[in-house]
Amino acid sequence: MIKAGIIGSTGYAGGELARLLMQREDVKVVWYGSKSYIGQKYASIYQNMFRFVEDECLEDNIEKLADEADVIFMATPQGLCASLLKEDILKKCKIIDLSADFRIKNVEVYEQWYKITHASPQFISEAVYGLPEINREAVKKARLVANPGCYPTCSFLSIYPMVKEGLIDPSTIIIDAKSGTSGAGRGAKVDNLFCEVNENMKAYGVASHRHTPEIEEQLSYAAGIPVTISFTPHLVPMNRGILVTAYASLNGNVSEDEARAVYNKYYGNEYFVRVLDKNMVPQTRFVEGSNFVDVNVKVDPRTHRVIMMGAMDNLVKGAAGQAVQNMNLMFGLPENEGLKQIPMFP
Amino acid sequence: MIKAGIIGSTGYAGGELARLLMQREDVKVVWYGSKSYIGQKYASIYQNMFRFVEDECLEDNIEKLADEADVIFMATPQGLCASLLKEDILKKCKIIDLSADFRIKNVEVYEQWYKITHASPQFISEAVYGLPEINREAVKKARLVANPGCYPTCSFLSIYPMVKEGLIDPSTIIIDAKSGTSGAGRGAKVDNLFCEVNENMKAYGVASHRHTPEIEEQLSYAAGIPVTISFTPHLVPMNRGILVTAYASLNGNVSEDEARAVYNKYYGNEYFVRVLDKNMVPQTRFVEGSNFVDVNVKVDPRTHRVIMMGAMDNLVKGAAGQAVQNMNLMFGLPENEGLKQIPMFP
Amino acid sequence: MIKAGIIGSTGYAGGELARLLMQREDVKVVWYGSKSYIGQKYASIYQNMFRFVEDECLEDNIEKLADEADVIFMATPQGLCASLLKEDILKKCKIIDLSADFRIKNVEVYEQWYKITHASPQFISEAVYGLPEINREAVKKARLVANPGCYPTCSFLSIYPMVKEGLIDPSTIIIDAKSGTSGAGRGAKVDNLFCEVNENMKAYGVASHRHTPEIEEQLSYAAGIPVTISFTPHLVPMNRGILVTAYASLNGNVSEDEARAVYNKYYGNEYFVRVLDKNMVPQTRFVEGSNFVDVNVKVDPRTHRVIMMGAMDNLVKGAAGQAVQNMNLMFGLPENEGLKQIPMFP
Amino acid sequence: MIKAGIIGSTGYAGGELARLLMQREDVKVVWYGSKSYIGQKYASIYQNMFRFVEDECLEDNIEKLADEADVIFMATPQGLCASLLKEDILKKCKIIDLSADFRIKNVEVYEQWYKITHASPQFISEAVYGLPEINREAVKKARLVANPGCYPTCSFLSIYPMVKEGLIDPSTIIIDAKSGTSGAGRGAKVDNLFCEVNENMKAYGVASHRHTPEIEEQLSYAAGIPVTISFTPHLVPMNRGILVTAYASLNGNVSEDEARAVYNKYYGNEYFVRVLDKNMVPQTRFVEGSNFVDVNVKVDPRTHRVIMMGAMDNLVKGAAGQAVQNMNLMFGLPENEGLKQIPMFP
Repeated sequence: MIKAGIIGSTGYAGGELARLLMQREDVKVVWYGSKSYIGQKYASIYQNMFRFVEDECLEDNIEKLADEADVIFMATPQGLCASLLKEDILKKCKIIDLSADFRIKNVEVYEQWYKITHASPQFISEAVYGLPEINREAVKKARLVANPGCYPTCSFLSIYPMVKEGLIDPSTIIIDAKSGTSGAGRGAKVDNLFCEVNENMKAYGVASHRHTPEIEEQLSYAAGIPVTISFTPHLVPMNRGILVTAYASLNGNVSEDEARAVYNKYYGNEYFVRVLDKNMVPQTRFVEGSNFVDVNVKVDPRTHRVIMMGAMDNLVKGAAGQAVQNMNLMFGLPENEGLKQIPMFP
Repeated sequence: MIKAGIIGSTGYAGGELARLLMQREDVKVVWYGSKSYIGQKYASIYQNMFRFVEDECLEDNIEKLADEADVIFMATPQGLCASLLKEDILKKCKIIDLSADFRIKNVEVYEQWYKITHASPQFISEAVYGLPEINREAVKKARLVANPGCYPTCSFLSIYPMVKEGLIDPSTIIIDAKSGTSGAGRGAKVDNLFCEVNENMKAYGVASHRHTPEIEEQLSYAAGIPVTISFTPHLVPMNRGILVTAYASLNGNVSEDEARAVYNKYYGNEYFVRVLDKNMVPQTRFVEGSNFVDVNVKVDPRTHRVIMMGAMDNLVKGAAGQAVQNMNLMFGLPENEGLKQIPMFP
Repeated sequence: MIKAGIIGSTGYAGGELARLLMQREDVKVVWYGSKSYIGQKYASIYQNMFRFVEDECLEDNIEKLADEADVIFMATPQGLCASLLKEDILKKCKIIDLSADFRIKNVEVYEQWYKITHASPQFISEAVYGLPEINREAVKKARLVANPGCYPTCSFLSIYPMVKEGLIDPSTIIIDAKSGTSGAGRGAKVDNLFCEVNENMKAYGVASHRHTPEIEEQLSYAAGIPVTISFTPHLVPMNRGILVTAYASLNGNVSEDEARAVYNKYYGNEYFVRVLDKNMVPQTRFVEGSNFVDVNVKVDPRTHRVIMMGAMDNLVKGAAGQAVQNMNLMFGLPENEGLKQIPMFP
Repeated sequence: MIKAGIIGSTGYAGGELARLLMQREDVKVVWYGSKSYIGQKYASIYQNMFRFVEDECLEDNIEKLADEADVIFMATPQGLCASLLKEDILKKCKIIDLSADFRIKNVEVYEQWYKITHASPQFISEAVYGLPEINREAVKKARLVANPGCYPTCSFLSIYPMVKEGLIDPSTIIIDAKSGTSGAGRGAKVDNLFCEVNENMKAYGVASHRHTPEIEEQLSYAAGIPVTISFTPHLVPMNRGILVTAYASLNGNVSEDEARAVYNKYYGNEYFVRVLDKNMVPQTRFVEGSNFVDVNVKVDPRTHRVIMMGAMDNLVKGAAGQAVQNMNLMFGLPENEGLKQIPMFP
């Protein structure tokens, strides 16, 4: 029985994590951490879990939690994990950090984009970027996993094979991403009220979104050279789902079949990445509630560009599901344990 | 291994049924029936199931299917099941009919409300109304189960304890129900287009909806006298979910605690009915994707009425999930097998 | 040129009021009051009005405003108008209060339901309940208009003819109402976040909503006897719109044609109340953005009840539009001036 | 009094056109054409216009209509206008065609992208592309106006100043566009059902959408050289609104202020194009129901690219509103007559 604690369990990612773990017989959630709801019954906040959990929310005491848990999930704002982490804690239990604190290897880049002084840069080099499709073996041995961001997961997996195989010019990559509103979190802000989001579309963080350097770093590893991209996220009136439409110029003549072949080469054996059939487009409704990423490509001979598309549930593969996938690897379990749900439609 | 066939597998209820059954290791779907998509890959229609099923849609050949399956689910329009059913078929396999054909014991009432001549009234008396919370033992022995309607399931379970215990005057029952749009089916109709449904609310079938006699029949059994009700369904701009708000005059003085006590009496041991804590209201978002019905009551001393509330996922407890619950009982399995999903939120 | 000031111009009702007034050539908004956005450009908060207004938001200084304006709209929380009002102000300019402070004649009832001590009960008797379809002549002469609540407007107008003509038993009236989320206001609350409201339905304020006594008071005037009702509001995932479905027992035999005739009797000459053709149901999408209330009735001979239905835009006829309608009457203008917009669909 | 006929008045664009024209005192709609609803009352199809119109839908008899009307709006599928048009008709009345038939000057390009043989290519050269911000004087004198497509209007106006002034390399233009579902029309298709669109995002027509050559042609005129672009439209779960996010590489160093200056140069005097303040992003909710296009730009020094953004109501500036704007010009009226509505929010 894996004992798991969740710091930040009352946010949307934390709630989804609790829900996923609660349905497993080999995991027990021993700590429902919260900043805003200490002492309240967890099932009164997430009424969907009524009768599944009697626990009350506990304070963010990571030291005490480390004594009780085998793994701690940090579903917390940027900076908190770095400020709490100590060697002592890492000696006692594994950490899966859903924030950005340990995703970026260059601490200056982190501090510049996040406007935060990193409180424990000494752990950055040890942290493993928890994208199992790329870093599976490293995750298995990690004490500290930096769970990837939602946009980076969907963006990177949509583009990776083309970059890795050198089929596109990385300097031409443009990523236009669209996200459901759960990605904006559960904070009480006017901008995220129903009437503000419903019947609306907007870009945000234009040319300045903090997921940009994370995507660039991972693409740079794949390309073998530094990659700079354009990345524009948009807010869409739906709860869950990220859709990525990415553009790049082809290196020489590449047919659609050749492009599709490299996706199958890299993802053919991946449980969670589904390369769709020719001419099927990824749609968020068809991955909702699951840990799948659906991808496909379209070659446009008129412009010598390729359009790379991916769809994913931002709370599952983009956050809680991927965290569970990482936990499975870290504890020697089948990677898809507790993650086999077929997407729910409609 | 239970071999299951689905006639009408490309409608929303059929699709949900396929999804629920496909995730089980003790059930195999052997027949994806369809009227409109014969010969097409099932996963091209329900792309969420991509890579989970390679089958193509088959015609509605119930005779052939009866040779191959242990159980047949009929997720079809009214009248079809009655027109296809024969003693031969019932001898070979169990039938769970999600249509209304065998729900109403009085064939004249059926024919009057549904404007259809019943093609096989000889099976009506044998059919068991598949609401396990009421007819559990009968379901276990049934060859033919009439799976309840979505509105009747939520309406009846919300009201039943008060009627059964004689705490309300059944002649005063008014049911105001609201449903998500998946209840309207997957047919291509202008009225169900996104732009027609979105940002809209309307009543429909006012004083004439066909679920009325079904609710009345079940309430009459509970009351021990014939019950006539007002029932008004409404269409709401969301995919899944039924919310019932029902009103009735109290028989004498009944406190809210007394009212809540009878709900706990009848549902305390029911896995799928959650009697919420005092002052919590049922909300569709907190049952989505699950087989739960959340219920609660509020006594209004000003009007000597009680407000009875219930929330449910119309495609699960209101259709496919309840059908699986019935299948479990018919095959001697734990009633909640394959139905333990915690509702998904948001 | 009517000079108008709006206290509370940055809420949804205040914003709609500004938008309606700004499009008129005979009205000038001279004061955009706000509590939270003082000093900010109004068009930066309501970007839809970009280039239509250069003003910044001003503090809630009603004394100063009274010197500058001919009419003041109070689109503010309960209690504020009562706390600010003085004879001096009423001598200088007309007041249209969109809050509940002056809607209820019995101050004890107000204080009991609103849990507020009324700060200026001396003005209650003079205040005119601003439902022009009922109190047109009184509104024309009023200094102080209590603009009706959204639910009361739609509920009352849907039921009024039946009560006035004695066709129903008022003690059996049950009102089940559903509202879009703009009715919940623009405050930053978790409960009103997109992800909490979207794909959800719930009742709220069950047997305790503060619009209940307002509806009862108006129905009592119509009935000539005290009326007590059941009233349950629900929150629906859409921006605008209120739908009322009301039930009552008929007094003796009343045909649907007779029922429809009394609606035409009372509303035949009303510009803003549309009695739909037989068998058409009121739908919120068909009144959106307009000051219309669509109503219709259905007689159910099985239950000897009538179902009375109404649909309305809660921000227009339920708030800002009705306030403008009242202003028109108070200033001797055509009642529909600036309110002739045809509902926008889709 | 301008007498106007609408062929295709029961589609969404036709309905919006009827609504806009019906509110004017200087225009009378004399013909509500329809293919599917001949003989039905127009207000029974568009219940929002109940009591505003008593007319029944008429067949598509353009010859007869030409005798009665001063202007005919064709809100019809591709190919119909070209097949009906004759010199006789153009002699009698003005034509504003909302379909694509006369938008593209090169008939081969039209036929290749639309897979239709053009039935009256002789009128193509005379037809004026009805984007008043570019072709104002020509529209005033036109007999036949080709009303621009929704995506082209928003795309072109978002990019035009940068291309015209040579600030970007036209060969690098990538347009990622998102549209509400009313753009998909009112046809009864499974793909456009509420449950299919709600909670979903997808790209469609990838590298093959028919608005591509229209955008390219107009950009080519602005650039003075042939322009080829990448254009990807997406379907978003909302009724109205198009959002364009376009990318291009800058020619040399261009600051954001310089970029914004050229937008103000071209649009400073345009009533319907609002260049937002620095750092404001165009949002569809802030143009809904209006004829405005909101635009803004962001220069990204990291990538030497500019992100050009535009938001518009696809049924107004993208269809019916622009058609009315063209009508105003053709009849010598103020360009914004009947089009001064402030966007409705929320």
